[in-house]
Amino acid sequence: MKKLMKSVVIGGLAAAVVSGATLAGAAQSAKTSGGAAKAQSKNLIVLIGDGMGPAQISAARYFQQYTKGVSHLNLDPYYVGQATTYADRGEDGGKIVSGIVTDSASAGTAFATGHKTYNAGISVSNEDVSKPFASIIEAAETSGKATGLVTTARITHATPAVYASHVRSRDNESAIASQYLESGVDVLMGGGKQFFVTKDEKGKRTDKNILPDFKAEGYTVVENKTALNALTSKNSKVLGLFGSSHVAYVPDRTAEIPSLATMTSKALNILSADKEGFVMMIEGGRIDHAGHANDLPTLVQEALDFDAAVKTAIDFAKKNGNTSVVVTADHETGGLSLSRDNIYEINIDLWDKQKHSSESLAAALEAAQTPEEIRSIVTANTWITDLTDEEVAQIMEGDGSSYKREGAYNAVVSKRLLVGWSGHGHSAVDVGVWAYGPIAEQVKGQVDNTEIAKAGASILGLDLNKRSAELQSQYVYPKFKISRDNKVLYPAEALIKALGGTYKGDAAAAKLTLQKNVIDVNLTDKTAKLNGKAASYIVDIDNGVLYLPLSAFSQLKGTTLTWDALSERIKLR
Amino acid sequence: MKKLMKSVVIGGLAAAVVSGATLAGAAQSAKTSGGAAKAQSKNLIVLIGDGMGPAQISAARYFQQYTKGVSHLNLDPYYVGQATTYADRGEDGGKIVSGIVTDSASAGTAFATGHKTYNAGISVSNEDVSKPFASIIEAAETSGKATGLVTTARITHATPAVYASHVRSRDNESAIASQYLESGVDVLMGGGKQFFVTKDEKGKRTDKNILPDFKAEGYTVVENKTALNALTSKNSKVLGLFGSSHVAYVPDRTAEIPSLATMTSKALNILSADKEGFVMMIEGGRIDHAGHANDLPTLVQEALDFDAAVKTAIDFAKKNGNTSVVVTADHETGGLSLSRDNIYEINIDLWDKQKHSSESLAAALEAAQTPEEIRSIVTANTWITDLTDEEVAQIMEGDGSSYKREGAYNAVVSKRLLVGWSGHGHSAVDVGVWAYGPIAEQVKGQVDNTEIAKAGASILGLDLNKRSAELQSQYVYPKFKISRDNKVLYPAEALIKALGGTYKGDAAAAKLTLQKNVIDVNLTDKTAKLNGKAASYIVDIDNGVLYLPLSAFSQLKGTTLTWDALSERIKLR
Repeated sequence: MKKLMKSVVIGGLAAAVVSGATLAGAAQSAKTSGGAAKAQSKNLIVLIGDGMGPAQISAARYFQQYTKGVSHLNLDPYYVGQATTYADRGEDGGKIVSGIVTDSASAGTAFATGHKTYNAGISVSNEDVSKPFASIIEAAETSGKATGLVTTARITHATPAVYASHVRSRDNESAIASQYLESGVDVLMGGGKQFFVTKDEKGKRTDKNILPDFKAEGYTVVENKTALNALTSKNSKVLGLFGSSHVAYVPDRTAEIPSLATMTSKALNILSADKEGFVMMIEGGRIDHAGHANDLPTLVQEALDFDAAVKTAIDFAKKNGNTSVVVTADHETGGLSLSRDNIYEINIDLWDKQKHSSESLAAALEAAQTPEEIRSIVTANTWITDLTDEEVAQIMEGDGSSYKREGAYNAVVSKRLLVGWSGHGHSAVDVGVWAYGPIAEQVKGQVDNTEIAKAGASILGLDLNKRSAELQSQYVYPKFKISRDNKVLYPAEALIKALGGTYKGDAAAAKLTLQKNVIDVNLTDKTAKLNGKAASYIVDIDNGVLYLPLSAFSQLKGTTLTWDALSERIKLR
Repeated sequence: MKKLMKSVVIGGLAAAVVSGATLAGAAQSAKTSGGAAKAQSKNLIVLIGDGMGPAQISAARYFQQYTKGVSHLNLDPYYVGQATTYADRGEDGGKIVSGIVTDSASAGTAFATGHKTYNAGISVSNEDVSKPFASIIEAAETSGKATGLVTTARITHATPAVYASHVRSRDNESAIASQYLESGVDVLMGGGKQFFVTKDEKGKRTDKNILPDFKAEGYTVVENKTALNALTSKNSKVLGLFGSSHVAYVPDRTAEIPSLATMTSKALNILSADKEGFVMMIEGGRIDHAGHANDLPTLVQEALDFDAAVKTAIDFAKKNGNTSVVVTADHETGGLSLSRDNIYEINIDLWDKQKHSSESLAAALEAAQTPEEIRSIVTANTWITDLTDEEVAQIMEGDGSSYKREGAYNAVVSKRLLVGWSGHGHSAVDVGVWAYGPIAEQVKGQVDNTEIAKAGASILGLDLNKRSAELQSQYVYPKFKISRDNKVLYPAEALIKALGGTYKGDAAAAKLTLQKNVIDVNLTDKTAKLNGKAASYIVDIDNGVLYLPLSAFSQLKGTTLTWDALSERIKLR
């Protein structure tokens, strides 16, 4: 939990939290302070199978049945419904940027905060000047609970990011890492070390290595399974980074790479030590990546790795007795079909015959100069000893996507496995919802993914709206432009309205009003006046939209607004 | 209900049914006589969306939202779980004939009878000599309830067939039609007139027109919407045939073709007049056909036609107060993906721009001689005015499947709609389950499709096992061969064992024993002895399997077994 926020909250929650009152007492306090529902669980575990659509679940179950003789997944007994996943089709820059097919950022924003947004948006609204939406993790922080994010993807990837950061673009992973430092989230585990260290250190950051900042904040940083296993519940703050980018796929893992269940178990051990309860999100992040690549053998292993983490979570919840668990996916990936080419079978006896992921072959496939080299790579990694000349040619040609030869390799393998794909992107089919504990009643049946966040808040007695309002009083996330002389400029109409002011304009002039301050802009000669006196703002008109510098808005508001260039947000106070 | 069976049943159920006792009373009698559970509903409506996988549901919902602004399907509020659909992988003729991907016959047998079987099997076991499995409809007949089958496919197609007939192959639709006559099913509505009339009458039957037999049995035969609408609840037996083959697709229907909801409404009106309750199955049979063809615009209309029937059924159940409703699918068809080619959108604004089904164009597309004719056909039926030369060539080339140019036309259209398909067959993804009334509790969560039948029997207080035992005492369904001189021969070992006898054999001789009778066969000189005396059976050995004529088995059993050549079954008594 976040120290600063906790002190704020203690004021709000009065004595209940401070005195270590019972769950019911804390919940009633929360209700009193924020209008939230009465708590039914003290703890909440959210598990997200990224890209885990209906066919991925069926595939994993049939694969497990074939390889282990076990006919049910760990999550099967908890199936309660399915969720729609569509993104917000709102306006962004004058045109629809998102559609019925969501990405992980938009879907994650929905099930983390209860709000739809555009694809790529990390817990911000779909506007030219976006507002932040609070996540269930952020609301839990406010209430004094411990929190955690665990994933096999980069910890700065979209699904964990939506729970503890706010940026207009999911690609801004350096900002996401930096925001984690301020978030108060106690346990962060996954890959993505590259966004914590500089380019000089094989990282991606241009500013500085922020690992010392995490250590200064009390985090123990661990980078392998031995160090992870050595942690105890006394290590209340942990940053686990088990890869420069994503955590290695199951078939590619070395002994020092923890499974998702291992990370989950340790995180539960640490977080459950908090007397006020905890909220955590656990993501099987690479089911999606294997789906994007169309690598079915790796996909099913990643799905089972996730399913093992589900078992860890539910076993904990059953023993603990005061924990709700909800499991869902953000979307389906790949357009996976369990059959193809009019054949009523899937060759499941071949699904366990690939040694390593297609990703692990990609560089070698690209470097191969001859058909013989291609044959050698494929034969070494699979059961295929009769690769045809056509298949070799297909692989050398690539599949026309960014997956190139890896994509074509997976096309060859998938045809022999008798599974189909519609591409390398996501699809719009509804996804499953599984639940244990009191939350189950609130997410059963046909729901929208936003219900996952709302049900979580309800079950914990948390108020997402109240936390969102606090965040929205601190930051706005504008579209902006960089002028030729490297100045940051903001869309005048959208920003003044976001600040609570008004905008009137035509082709010749514009008037911005906030409180008692007025800026008049002459659009013809590009001059401006503040309260009738000449002001030296840069006046920029781009595609008919007026842009002004931040100083103009600071003067209108009468306070100093500051620009956080890393997170691309304006600090309001 | 079946008159003969009813009289038998009244004996079994004693006074409860005769006196019109309450539901609970009848159920207790049923329990007493058959060991079944106590009834919780008097009536059961089963609705099957053939080929309606998860993506089909999502597609229909998004289509309805776009075209009508209604964000929920009628069935959405009743979503309770999902079902596995795999076929029986048992032995059939020495090799596995079915796999994880089911067909409608195997899946239908599962949810109608509670037993898995091989693909193509209509409510018979997966054996060389198959046993019949009783369906929920047949068990309801035995209990004196009214019964009905309604579909947009041929009424003799696999999904209705599994409820009221038993054949080794779904293709034997003439036998299915004839078995309906004996089934006692009160209301039969769908397409498929061709299997009731002879080849001379544009039908498929080689024996005779059986419509007079249905009329003699009390059925009113109707063939258009006007005649259907004119029926009242006094028409207790109805055969509705609204097409020679399947009922026309929604976009191709004339005014005299009823919708599935119209058929459902009339069937409910008739069946609900029975004081002892009713069981009916309603199939949206052509969601599957449009999936096979990869015709998405038609598929979504068929899915909404089905969803309207769901509303009719649930509205009835709500008003009636003593009815359970369960909705599921047999399998997914086509490997439908809602996105393709790495694009995060589906062009839903184009989904309602096709005028008629691709099926309606198939003959014209095949007959087209020139690119101009192809262009003309496509332009007349779609929004596409810019068909490229490549697309025209693709259509003229055909898609390499039995769908030929129609398949290629749908490939062109689907690419523009941004949906993908993995082929023209079924896939193995789990399917949704929706339910209303007491049955809901028994089919919720992750279930197997066999649970649908078992839950239905339980909720009605019916005993499927008892009814199966009765059927199994009447018929067996053997594999057989026709000899060169046109005699029907049966596999000796499989059949004698199915009759309860024993078989001992080696390369030289075989001994068949049943009760006190013995047949010894000399496999070398192909002679046989019955109880030590020479017998003149044809002795045929085919791939090492001994075949004998039916007379041999009749003499072993000591009763005359008869061969029903149409249904390819042996009548045991």
